[in-house]
Amino acid sequence: MIVLFTDFGLAGPYTGQVTAVLQQLAPQAPIISLFADAPSARPKPSAYLLAAYGGWFPAGTVLLCVVDPGVGSARRAVIVEVEGRVYIGPDNGLFDIVMRRDPGTRLWEIGWHPETLSASFHGRDLFAPVAARLAAGTPIIELAQPTADESATRGWPDDLAEIIYIDHYGNAMTGMRGRLVPPTARLVADEHMLASATTFSAVPQGQAFWYVNSNGLAEIAVNGARADKALGLAIGSPIAIQS
Amino acid sequence: MIVLFTDFGLAGPYTGQVTAVLQQLAPQAPIISLFADAPSARPKPSAYLLAAYGGWFPAGTVLLCVVDPGVGSARRAVIVEVEGRVYIGPDNGLFDIVMRRDPGTRLWEIGWHPETLSASFHGRDLFAPVAARLAAGTPIIELAQPTADESATRGWPDDLAEIIYIDHYGNAMTGMRGRLVPPTARLVADEHMLASATTFSAVPQGQAFWYVNSNGLAEIAVNGARADKALGLAIGSPIAIQS
Amino acid sequence: MIVLFTDFGLAGPYTGQVTAVLQQLAPQAPIISLFADAPSARPKPSAYLLAAYGGWFPAGTVLLCVVDPGVGSARRAVIVEVEGRVYIGPDNGLFDIVMRRDPGTRLWEIGWHPETLSASFHGRDLFAPVAARLAAGTPIIELAQPTADESATRGWPDDLAEIIYIDHYGNAMTGMRGRLVPPTARLVADEHMLASATTFSAVPQGQAFWYVNSNGLAEIAVNGARADKALGLAIGSPIAIQS
Repeated sequence: MIVLFTDFGLAGPYTGQVTAVLQQLAPQAPIISLFADAPSARPKPSAYLLAAYGGWFPAGTVLLCVVDPGVGSARRAVIVEVEGRVYIGPDNGLFDIVMRRDPGTRLWEIGWHPETLSASFHGRDLFAPVAARLAAGTPIIELAQPTADESATRGWPDDLAEIIYIDHYGNAMTGMRGRLVPPTARLVADEHMLASATTFSAVPQGQAFWYVNSNGLAEIAVNGARADKALGLAIGSPIAIQS
Repeated sequence: MIVLFTDFGLAGPYTGQVTAVLQQLAPQAPIISLFADAPSARPKPSAYLLAAYGGWFPAGTVLLCVVDPGVGSARRAVIVEVEGRVYIGPDNGLFDIVMRRDPGTRLWEIGWHPETLSASFHGRDLFAPVAARLAAGTPIIELAQPTADESATRGWPDDLAEIIYIDHYGNAMTGMRGRLVPPTARLVADEHMLASATTFSAVPQGQAFWYVNSNGLAEIAVNGARADKALGLAIGSPIAIQS
Repeated sequence: MIVLFTDFGLAGPYTGQVTAVLQQLAPQAPIISLFADAPSARPKPSAYLLAAYGGWFPAGTVLLCVVDPGVGSARRAVIVEVEGRVYIGPDNGLFDIVMRRDPGTRLWEIGWHPETLSASFHGRDLFAPVAARLAAGTPIIELAQPTADESATRGWPDDLAEIIYIDHYGNAMTGMRGRLVPPTARLVADEHMLASATTFSAVPQGQAFWYVNSNGLAEIAVNGARADKALGLAIGSPIAIQS
């Protein structure tokens, strides 16, 4: 299975072109778009989102991950190998949290080059062909060399006390693992103090709360309304924990 | 074929995770997203939309239907069997109109339980595995028991004189079957009185009209403009018929 | 491979129904959505977008192209055959630029008719069944007859000095082939004068520039921001070249 984690949008034309490349080079592999609306051009919140959602997929999954504002600059192109899954994408911090959460991670720098490489769309021209080859069975060593992990230079925290994603319903995911936040704690967003609940139907209509979402992140929601609008939240909004 | 009718949005991550579950459990079944923007958390307008569009698919189709604001509460999980198609989803009224339009419908309560069930995403954890198993040939009786139809308690009308969906062009679908509205009748939306036409090119640029859409619903449109903006329509806007 | 180029949107229900038709009639053909957000009901800018992106696909590709404000009127339904690819859709100018760029193009008028044809959704009822049959191997001559190219009557230019598409990041594509614009030239959009750059990372944060995008169009962007918002650009905005 090839899973897409990008900020390309779905409607056109980037996801379609990437899908066409994958389809031609790995026709047997099902292609699934997990996120096409990862935080646009922002590797830091995207890294926490990817760490929460990528690990849900089984061993053998190939994850093509492109949030790449530095496309065309000198940043490395890498493969991350962890628990039988492989992640392919730019080395701009996007994989920092995935790597940190598993000490057995191995990092590779992609040496393979396409015949023609556009300056602005490495997702299609470089990362997709590599992902397709891996999905079709090419060993990593034929495409990449082991390389050093430089994520320490960025020094991002283990959990990010910010909003990292607003979903289709207006719910606001934080970059914090929910099991690390005491259930009795309140989350403070702007001037709002939010208690936890198990799920939407456990609180009255219109009430804001936080809960541990289905992939383990602490998430802020309002029963029957959009939390982003009701509480003024956006990607990057700081969140505090009050015990 | 597995057809998705949800309010999940496509961009991420809900449709992707559901698709991954379906793909793993029923790898032979093509998966098609019919609606990912059904009226958000509103089973009533969604029920009329589903009745109009679900019946277009051939016998053998499995429809995974999730508009589920009560997820995590006590509402039943059901399978509806009608004319060789099966619908899977929450028993919150979403299937009321599908059932009413065919007296031969059979209703089942899902007894199958996943090993782990999140509080907020039964679409992925419960409904998708059931849908995949049905698509892969598991008999309904192995997953569910016949149960009583409780839709009468909701008492929703046969046709809903409201806007139930705004499409990508801004056209506004009503919950009324177009063949039940006399072609000479006018539809009244807010203060606007609309005559019928066959299609867009039959009226002057900028003119509002109603017509019977390609799935049989009475729909309000404006040639060359967005009807929702031009006429101030949204899901839930009341529509009257004037003969 | 069947490629979709439409203004249907993805979320529902038009792309889903078209996909279901294709899937049933050509189950072996992978289906890829290239654009579902082509300029809505505007064949002219869509024609330049299609010419830039359609030719990227290999011989044998079937492109189902529907931007069709005149659906239900007398416009012809056609097949365009060029360099081993076939395009299917309405004869409203959508294929004018594709045809002009290859003198070997052949044009066919579709004679095949479905049993039932809705007045407003020929994409599903007419174009998709024809595209699926072509993808499954039916010769063009069984579905269509050679016909005369009437594109000269529209007289559209070879390159369109307007914005033809705003992408997911807010970048603004022009209808001009980038290799025909001197790299030293400036593009003038409203009161903004823009120099060229190779890619985003070559200019300072916040700076607007133009570049040749990954499919050969001259495109206007801002490093780290949305060009459409920053420069006030929309589909149809005129662009001038200043040498």
